[in-house]
Formats: sequence, structure tokens, C-alpha cells
Amino acid sequence: MGLTVFDEAIAVQPARDGRYQMTPDDRFAIAGAVNGGVLLASVLRAVLDTSPHPHPIATSAHFLRAPRTEPAQIEVTWLKHGRVAATARATLVQDGRPVLETTVTTGGLGDPAEGGGLSWTGAPPQLPPIQECEDIEHAQGPRAFSGYVKYVDIRLDPATVGWTRRQPSGRPEMRGYFQLREPRDPDACLLALAVDSLPPAVFGLAVVGWSPTVELTWHMRAVPGPGPLGLYGTGHLLSDGWFDEEVEVWDSAGNLVAQSRQLARLGRG
Amino acid sequence: MGLTVFDEAIAVQPARDGRYQMTPDDRFAIAGAVNGGVLLASVLRAVLDTSPHPHPIATSAHFLRAPRTEPAQIEVTWLKHGRVAATARATLVQDGRPVLETTVTTGGLGDPAEGGGLSWTGAPPQLPPIQECEDIEHAQGPRAFSGYVKYVDIRLDPATVGWTRRQPSGRPEMRGYFQLREPRDPDACLLALAVDSLPPAVFGLAVVGWSPTVELTWHMRAVPGPGPLGLYGTGHLLSDGWFDEEVEVWDSAGNLVAQSRQLARLGRG
Repeated sequence: MGLTVFDEAIAVQPARDGRYQMTPDDRFAIAGAVNGGVLLASVLRAVLDTSPHPHPIATSAHFLRAPRTEPAQIEVTWLKHGRVAATARATLVQDGRPVLETTVTTGGLGDPAEGGGLSWTGAPPQLPPIQECEDIEHAQGPRAFSGYVKYVDIRLDPATVGWTRRQPSGRPEMRGYFQLREPRDPDACLLALAVDSLPPAVFGLAVVGWSPTVELTWHMRAVPGPGPLGLYGTGHLLSDGWFDEEVEVWDSAGNLVAQSRQLARLGRG
Repeated sequence: MGLTVFDEAIAVQPARDGRYQMTPDDRFAIAGAVNGGVLLASVLRAVLDTSPHPHPIATSAHFLRAPRTEPAQIEVTWLKHGRVAATARATLVQDGRPVLETTVTTGGLGDPAEGGGLSWTGAPPQLPPIQECEDIEHAQGPRAFSGYVKYVDIRLDPATVGWTRRQPSGRPEMRGYFQLREPRDPDACLLALAVDSLPPAVFGLAVVGWSPTVELTWHMRAVPGPGPLGLYGTGHLLSDGWFDEEVEVWDSAGNLVAQSRQLARLGRG
């Protein structure tokens, strides 16, 4: 089995002193900008390389500059090694300037005895069957979305695709199924891509063009099982040029596996 | 007018090279641990001191160690100065060890022309009138909540106080009004306290004792008007010893002014 294109795109090579080499991959660019989730997945590869815990429980990312598709470095500095959690600062640097500043707390998942076995899950959002959903590659949307859909298979809920026909739903919602076009089981790195892969939920209000993410934080809540992931994106406030977007990721077994929120800047239509 | 106790608690003194001196204030401690929101407010004081933009639009914080109520330093490093946004890394350090790692993106708010004037707000959550809500100081809850309520006036929605009488509601929800007991208008620093001031929403499922915040990110969405703030806390998943909590803050004029999400660790009951 060769590597998937996604795994090639997020590969990092260890250098010395906690540094890693990587190159942003233009196969995952949209309108010239490499997808933020792909960059995050590379950063996680570097952080997990020396993490004492297996999972990136909490990842905060501030996007500072658009990276070019030229060699870059990831600098990993561990701030804490604890029994339950460890925290690293990881910065993606290009030409000596920080492009993406992240903080990653790693920890364990999957021990139901933790917390005295107490557990509770909110109701899962609903999606129509995948065969009733619309492949985003076929949607007549803005040219901006012609990029990484060669590698990423997103099937949108018909209730949230009106914007592709200039008929936005009037609600900041975007829902659909997500998987790579090549066979590959979901893991933490793929979740990092998933939380930043939907068209902006505000397209349900109006197509606003390129909308750069300023800050994105996501939490890994369970190890995802195989199969397509369900993505549920919503927003709560669009104001003064800023909007929020929350994405829940559920695996095919019905487990909430990731939650994200990002703050983004309104594009120009 | 003297400073409020809160303003005393979050004061920082500029030193040199982007460093500030501060001392975590035990008047805002709960069970010996100074409230995370108060620490964040101190960090924001330091960041805003040299920020080219007025508001902390996006603040990500990873809580590494419980600070002692002894002198500490805040180290501020600017990573980007942009026209729309600027980003700083700010670390609270005690005895040479990082206690709280934050990244703060600052920017502007209040120009409705930004984003082409496009705006949208979700429906505001509902709270009963303040006189029907229960002062948390009088609630017969765990001793742990006897701390900073001398300075912070939180009035809980009666629908979310059952846990104080060993009758949790069965839903991870916590709602109420928030203000300081001393007269003081809300601002960014008070919002940082507000988003981390409610009893954990999971108390609606079971009182789980001290539940340390591992990561908290909050977004400032509007400049708050005067008057009590409305806080609306919910959770979506409690599993493997971790839980999330989202808090919306609405001002008395009915504007969504802040949104937060935190990931916390279940305490031992």
C-alpha cells in the first residue's frame, strides 16, 4: 500500500532540536491557499512524534499568514509533560516568519473508567443517507471550490446546497459526509482536515467568497471508527466582518469524535 | 473612584522586554486555585498594553499548572502585526515554569460596514427575570463555591440550580446573570472572567467536584454595553474523563458579546 496523497501532503521530516521540515502541498490548496486543516495535520504529525500521550485532545491554532508551497519548518517546544496531559507549542515557520501558531494538549482517550465511568452525549444531528447527498465536486459553486475535491469526497446534505444555485437556505448551516477519495481510515490527522473542510456555513446566508480562518480550536473526543464521517457545521453570529463556525464530527458508528470552532473573516463576494 | 477588587486582581506592571509582573490573587481562588478567567484577564491586560488593535478577538488558553498566589511574570511576544488583526503569544510563568500558555489575536469591532454590512445573529437564549434567579452565594452547593462569590454576583436560572439540592436537572446546562458586586461596566477583561465563572454545566448531570480547565478558547464578538451579562452554558459530550462546555455571553441590550468553549477534566466527586 502506498501513501495516500493526504499522507504525502502532511508528511514531516525530523530535523534537530525539535524541528521538522515540511512543504505545504498545492494539491490541497483552494484559490492558492493550502487548506488550514492540512497544515494543522502536519503540525500534529510533528507534535505526536515526541508526545508522551497518543491523542491531540485540544489543538488551538492562530493563522497568521498564507503559506507558500515552499519548504517550511515546524518548531515543537514541550511546555508540560503530565500524567494525564502534555502540552506543546508548535509553530509553522517560513522564511523566519511564523505562519501558523498552535498549542496542542495531548492525552488519553478510550478508558471509560476515567471520570468514574460517568458519560453523557447530546443527540446526534441528522443527515440524509449518503446516496441522497450531493458530491461537492459536481456542485456548480464558486470556482474557489475546484481545488482539493480531487482528493476529498464531500457529499452535502441537499438542504444545505442551495447556495451553489444562488439560493442560499437563509441559515448558516452546512452538513455532509466526509472521506478521502482514496481508501484511508480516519485518525486524528484526518479529523484535523475534516473540521476545516466544509464550505463556510455562512454560505447558507450569502456566498461571501474567500473567508480566511483567523483562529480555529478543535477537540478530539473519541478515536474514530472506519467509514465516512458526518460533519455538522453551524454559525451563531456574523457581525463587523467576523463570523464563527462550529463543526461537530460524528463517526459512522454514531460517536461524537471531534468538535471545532473557528473565527473567520468575511471575504469579499 | 478606587479600583474594584477585580481590577486590583488583574493588574500587571510592565517590566522590560515585553515582560509584565503580576500576582495571582487569592480573593478570586476557588478551593485554593485562582479562577482561570481572572488569570486570562491579567494576560489580556498585558497583551492589550502593546496591541495595535483595541479588542482581544480570539484568545486560546492552555492551563498547564495551578499557579500559586506568589509573584509571576507574563511574557508577551508579538507574532504578527496586521492591518485587520495582530497576534501575540503570552505566557504566564512562575518559578521559570509556564503556568498558562495563551495566544491572543486582537482586532477591531464595531464597524458595521465591514463585511459589506452583512450580519446575522442566532436567537438569544432565554433567562427568567433576574429577581426570579438564585444568588449563587445562597445556594447550598459544595463548599468549593464559597470563594470568589464575595466579589462576583451570579444569579442562576432556577431551572439549573437543582444540583445545589442534590437534584441535578439531568441536562448539562447552567444559565444565569453575571456582574461584579462592585459597580463596574463590562469590558474585555470582565468577559474573560464571565466565560469561566459559571459552575460547570456538567453539574446538571452530577456534581463532580473540582473540574480543572485544560483548554479554553473565547471570542469577543461585540463591545458589551452596561448592565448584568446573561450567561448560557451547555455541554455536548462527557466521556473518558473529559467534558466540553460552551458559554455564550449576551449583554443587557441583547447582543451576543462573547462565545467560549472549554475542555475540562472530570473531578473526583
